Amino acid sequence: MTNLQQDIALANRLADVAGSVIRPLFRNDFDQSRKADKTPVTEADQSAEAAMRAILENERAADGIIGEEYGTRNEASGRQWVLDPIDGTISFMAGRPIFGTLIALMQDGWPVLGVIDQPINGERWVGQIGVGTTFNGNPVKTSTCRALTEAKLATSSPHYFDADQAGAYMKVAAAVGGNERQGTIIYGGDCYNYGLLASGHLDIVCEAGLQIYDYAALVPVVEGAGGTMSDWQGNPLDAGSDGNVLALGDPARLDDVLEAMG
Amino acid sequence: MTNLQQDIALANRLADVAGSVIRPLFRNDFDQSRKADKTPVTEADQSAEAAMRAILENERAADGIIGEEYGTRNEASGRQWVLDPIDGTISFMAGRPIFGTLIALMQDGWPVLGVIDQPINGERWVGQIGVGTTFNGNPVKTSTCRALTEAKLATSSPHYFDADQAGAYMKVAAAVGGNERQGTIIYGGDCYNYGLLASGHLDIVCEAGLQIYDYAALVPVVEGAGGTMSDWQGNPLDAGSDGNVLALGDPARLDDVLEAMG
Repeated sequence: MTNLQQDIALANRLADVAGSVIRPLFRNDFDQSRKADKTPVTEADQSAEAAMRAILENERAADGIIGEEYGTRNEASGRQWVLDPIDGTISFMAGRPIFGTLIALMQDGWPVLGVIDQPINGERWVGQIGVGTTFNGNPVKTSTCRALTEAKLATSSPHYFDADQAGAYMKVAAAVGGNERQGTIIYGGDCYNYGLLASGHLDIVCEAGLQIYDYAALVPVVEGAGGTMSDWQGNPLDAGSDGNVLALGDPARLDDVLEAMG
Repeated sequence: MTNLQQDIALANRLADVAGSVIRPLFRNDFDQSRKADKTPVTEADQSAEAAMRAILENERAADGIIGEEYGTRNEASGRQWVLDPIDGTISFMAGRPIFGTLIALMQDGWPVLGVIDQPINGERWVGQIGVGTTFNGNPVKTSTCRALTEAKLATSSPHYFDADQAGAYMKVAAAVGGNERQGTIIYGGDCYNYGLLASGHLDIVCEAGLQIYDYAALVPVVEGAGGTMSDWQGNPLDAGSDGNVLALGDPARLDDVLEAMG
């Protein structure tokens, strides 16, 4: 196997292990608490990340790790594994099978490999920059979107925007068909929205305040499928981005979205 | 079989037929258009309701039908079948497996039997007032919730509230732990939220502007599991309700929610 094939095989194995930890706890009893920033965390988040880190520390001791629950290791390495054991913890807590495990490999700060895994439904997107994206092993492509008025737009929660961000987001919402029931706008979903966009079922995802472990895995999945991701100024996403992200299934609509927000 | 058992068997058969129409279209090509109120509709909505109505018109010619897509039949009947072939059409269009088919039987304007069916995951809640609620055949109960600060709250979309309704909703959101990331609040989900509440995974659902076909099936599912449903004044839901609904897994918290909204 090439190095990249080995990395993909490892990323798949990490997702398998996380899923095997998460599945028995879904809709079952699980310990939960609040982190320092008051967001909820469960034993599923913690145990799944611990299981993935154990594999990485054993098999890739020289690589770095950036994990949502247990922080950073080997910060100086040019290869960083970025882990979010459960993106959509509230969705997991509420029994919704649309959260995901996120695994990314960053090289020199740029995400090159990403996995979005939904362990309850058995759904996995694997993306590689410059190569492609698969859903359960089959190649997927984003959809063409001829105009914002025809776009399907998603965001996880209005509470994740501050007042300025909410204003910019609402302009995008208005551009896709109005702020009432007329717009094809859907809420909730977390990382699952980006998988659906990669598979051509959504056109735009617009979110703010994401951390590196929230977005690193999304970039290869979306871009490998023919879409584009950027910050709210249209800049590509790397480890230094501000966490305000746009995903477009059709890159030809990026300028329209940026214009609507401006 | 008793009459009630026959009605339950028929409701299950209607859900089976709707699912068999919807499943092949999920994440596939389907015709779509806009209704007079500009909300989207697909051939899955239309074909699923047509299939259910054909069975009812053939086997229960004297009963009434209230359907989202094809309107009312036998309006004067004391027995009304209330059908929403896809509650969460945008969720269906976006490829999310958390929409649902809703089937209710109303007697003299009161919902007595309700089905929430998720045909992709194979998940079905069946509720009967005064009898109980099952999930895939197994009895379910709502959860105890000791205080609003511990509650998990869901609503489908902020765009479904007008300004006054949004103000009341935001007071509930604040009461469950703040309007920022601290609150355990989840968006999207449509009817699926009420099934998760019946199974004890959510504590409160708060929505506005629902139609009879959106909420009739929810009442027996939630109340059969030990929860309560009401309008925003705490009145029980019947065919004449204004469509602003609350669902509580723990009826002891209803006064707290009404007080928070007031």
